[in-house]
Amino acid sequence: MTQNQADIGLIGLAVMGQNLVLNMNDHGYTVAVFNRTTSKVDDFLNTTAKGTNVIGTHNLKEFFATLKRPRKVMMMVKAGTAVDDLIAECLPFLEAGDIVIDGGNSLYTDSERRMVELDKKGVLFVGAGISGGEEGARHGPSIMPGGNPKAWPALKEIFQSISAKATEDGLPCCEWIGEGGAGHYVKMVHNGIEYGDMQLICEAYEILRDSLGCTIDEIKDIFVTWNKGALSSYLIEIAGNVFAHKDKDGSPLIDKILDVAGQKGTGKWTGISALELGLPVTLIGEAVFARCLSALKDERVRVSKLYPRKKLTPPADKAKKIEEVRQALYASKMISYAQGFTLIKEAAKQFKWTLDYGSIALIWRAGCIIRSRFLNDIKKAFVKNPNLDNLLFDPFFQGEITSCEEGWRTTVAYTAMTGIPAPCFSTALSYFDGYRSERLPANLLQALRDFFGAHTYERIDEPRGKFFHTNWTGSGGNITAGSYSV
Amino acid sequence: MTQNQADIGLIGLAVMGQNLVLNMNDHGYTVAVFNRTTSKVDDFLNTTAKGTNVIGTHNLKEFFATLKRPRKVMMMVKAGTAVDDLIAECLPFLEAGDIVIDGGNSLYTDSERRMVELDKKGVLFVGAGISGGEEGARHGPSIMPGGNPKAWPALKEIFQSISAKATEDGLPCCEWIGEGGAGHYVKMVHNGIEYGDMQLICEAYEILRDSLGCTIDEIKDIFVTWNKGALSSYLIEIAGNVFAHKDKDGSPLIDKILDVAGQKGTGKWTGISALELGLPVTLIGEAVFARCLSALKDERVRVSKLYPRKKLTPPADKAKKIEEVRQALYASKMISYAQGFTLIKEAAKQFKWTLDYGSIALIWRAGCIIRSRFLNDIKKAFVKNPNLDNLLFDPFFQGEITSCEEGWRTTVAYTAMTGIPAPCFSTALSYFDGYRSERLPANLLQALRDFFGAHTYERIDEPRGKFFHTNWTGSGGNITAGSYSV
Repeated sequence: MTQNQADIGLIGLAVMGQNLVLNMNDHGYTVAVFNRTTSKVDDFLNTTAKGTNVIGTHNLKEFFATLKRPRKVMMMVKAGTAVDDLIAECLPFLEAGDIVIDGGNSLYTDSERRMVELDKKGVLFVGAGISGGEEGARHGPSIMPGGNPKAWPALKEIFQSISAKATEDGLPCCEWIGEGGAGHYVKMVHNGIEYGDMQLICEAYEILRDSLGCTIDEIKDIFVTWNKGALSSYLIEIAGNVFAHKDKDGSPLIDKILDVAGQKGTGKWTGISALELGLPVTLIGEAVFARCLSALKDERVRVSKLYPRKKLTPPADKAKKIEEVRQALYASKMISYAQGFTLIKEAAKQFKWTLDYGSIALIWRAGCIIRSRFLNDIKKAFVKNPNLDNLLFDPFFQGEITSCEEGWRTTVAYTAMTGIPAPCFSTALSYFDGYRSERLPANLLQALRDFFGAHTYERIDEPRGKFFHTNWTGSGGNITAGSYSV
Repeated sequence: MTQNQADIGLIGLAVMGQNLVLNMNDHGYTVAVFNRTTSKVDDFLNTTAKGTNVIGTHNLKEFFATLKRPRKVMMMVKAGTAVDDLIAECLPFLEAGDIVIDGGNSLYTDSERRMVELDKKGVLFVGAGISGGEEGARHGPSIMPGGNPKAWPALKEIFQSISAKATEDGLPCCEWIGEGGAGHYVKMVHNGIEYGDMQLICEAYEILRDSLGCTIDEIKDIFVTWNKGALSSYLIEIAGNVFAHKDKDGSPLIDKILDVAGQKGTGKWTGISALELGLPVTLIGEAVFARCLSALKDERVRVSKLYPRKKLTPPADKAKKIEEVRQALYASKMISYAQGFTLIKEAAKQFKWTLDYGSIALIWRAGCIIRSRFLNDIKKAFVKNPNLDNLLFDPFFQGEITSCEEGWRTTVAYTAMTGIPAPCFSTALSYFDGYRSERLPANLLQALRDFFGAHTYERIDEPRGKFFHTNWTGSGGNITAGSYSV
């Protein structure tokens, strides 16, 4: 058996694991692999890994024996207890200074915990978010590593060499994110933003299809055109490819696909984190709920008989309407990223991570699912002002939002009047209109809370932090709220 | 010292605790009280409890000695560890068969856990949600008890006698909800709905104020009128009172209150539970986020300079617009309750609670913050069909929604065009339009997920549960998705 010669080891040979191994092999690294169902190791070596330097192993002892010291063990298994179980199985073989990398979509709090636990044993834990799907893993993903910073020098070269490189400047789409769960947190928000982007694309598609009466071929052409402008991105591009794909009978395959969306959890986690941290990340929230709603297919079919949609006549000014939809999509996308970055910023504050927001935008420019031209603009905004409170304060985004505003408003109003659901276009606009409101109606909310629960309120003509209670009805005592909460 | 003569004991003399004690006393029960800061016991007995049969105690030994067996101990302390700490302190005094009632706003999972833990010691735990604010606690709250069902026979008489009674039929607003955390879960959703109701009222107020140019006196009259119709409810009523209240200088107090909303957590919990269970409870989600957004006051003031609102000319057809706002408010409210009940239903399925939805609507008809005429209609819907999937299937609600639809759509479109944020009116409409859509654009979402992650999709011309993968670009192998998830 070949001893101590593999640069890195990888456990878990599902699609992402296999492709990462092939990617590392392409870049000159010797990779040892192991999989619980060992036949997968043999299958892999006899098919896609044939002729490579990949070393197959059939038990953990053999696997660890092939690795150079300090051993780097990458785990590509299902997030959750499977990661803990695998770490426990590996522990007898791990030595101080060895590095364990979890490349799955783990919850950031798990990564935070695993780093602390392994640190006690001298083992360096890294939670690395990896985006790009199977193609990305094979040819260059976006990698978001966080965890024990002592591990980074040993991983930097290999991770940056297998990662995607940005077209604009050739920079690798992999940088150290931060301590503990920071890598998986940023990956989680990436996925949440991906949920948002996909839902926005779906809303545009539905308006084009159901309200403007475009054919799938027309929609394909629209997406191809959009992909040449500010919306240029991987998801817009592959949506174009999807529309172009014909089923066996020659009709568009898209029309045969069931409208029930699946999800695996990272979108929900992002929404939950936003609620926990108290940040209005409304677009991702609505995108997750839109998937949940799509899953209620049987109910939808039944309820559609009770509240039928009006028959719509395609409008005369179709080209103008299509441009308005583009503006709505672009403006909503800017809002979504603005919200996403405020969430990462708040999490960094909460969990005491030092993050470089421009660098995060950089990492997302290529390799990952949300890669797009517009991430360069986000990077520029954070380079100009590393402590930007919100992208909406940046002059570039101010200009872009303002130039899209009319089409965005018109589209939201149009969907409301014609009965096409556009939850993410709408929530983006509501957020924008709320955020840019010097005065919101929350004064009434505070008055009501004080009325029924003595929760007190602040006044506009008194300093912040000074609380008042009014005896609104004239009855009752001057008791202030204690344990009761709304 | 008076031994074994108190019918029930209460620990925690903040406003809710004090008022519940006085309420029980009014109904002929002898109540023993204790508070950690014992001066509060004396203050209470020397002021509002003067001349009552309330027994003050100054330590737990004395407190437990005054209680009849089985002892009923009601805790009105801050939700969280304070409840666990207090239970631990009481444990040495508790005997098998004794009943511990947590009347705070505890998280349902905590109540679930506490029931199990205390059951091992033979102590019967009840998690009782109590709504109605200080007024409700004093004169008749809505009570939602859940937990150990063996406790209910001993509590029923006292809880039902102190609870509110519905105007329509005199029925008590207190019924046994279900096992474990069911009582606190239902109270949590009640609070979430309360968040939604309050935000809807705020949105109506903002449109009337900022867009239609109504004075506060006009708005007061509008709310008084609305309170006579289908919207008749406690919150609409007290909003009217708030608008009527003048500050010392004679101007409306509402104009002096800062527009920064506070929150204590139950709304967030409802949103988190909706995400966890995968139910589109969008209106409560947006209501929580609206409070979060209001809290960003300093940012809002700064950003408002970059994106100023257009100056609005009040429309000529003001009366018509006001009626449209009313329809938007009413329709959105129906959607919110429809969403809330689907959440409770899903939770019951998940946690194996047997719930009576009509009975829950009954309990909310009086005493609590969301009490309203329209809860009778919800009760009727569930009496007609106890397994109703969604209120929108009920003929009464079908009629009401349909009759409001035009005003609702017009209002949402109007806010979009005029730049008034109306996140809850909008999300309610998006949900309605999505839910009544036989075909949503989620087919594209599934195609995209299959494209980049090999997540597979179902087809409309094949049975459900049969999954397909397309090699969209023609490259790559036939590997299907394993550990990678979006």
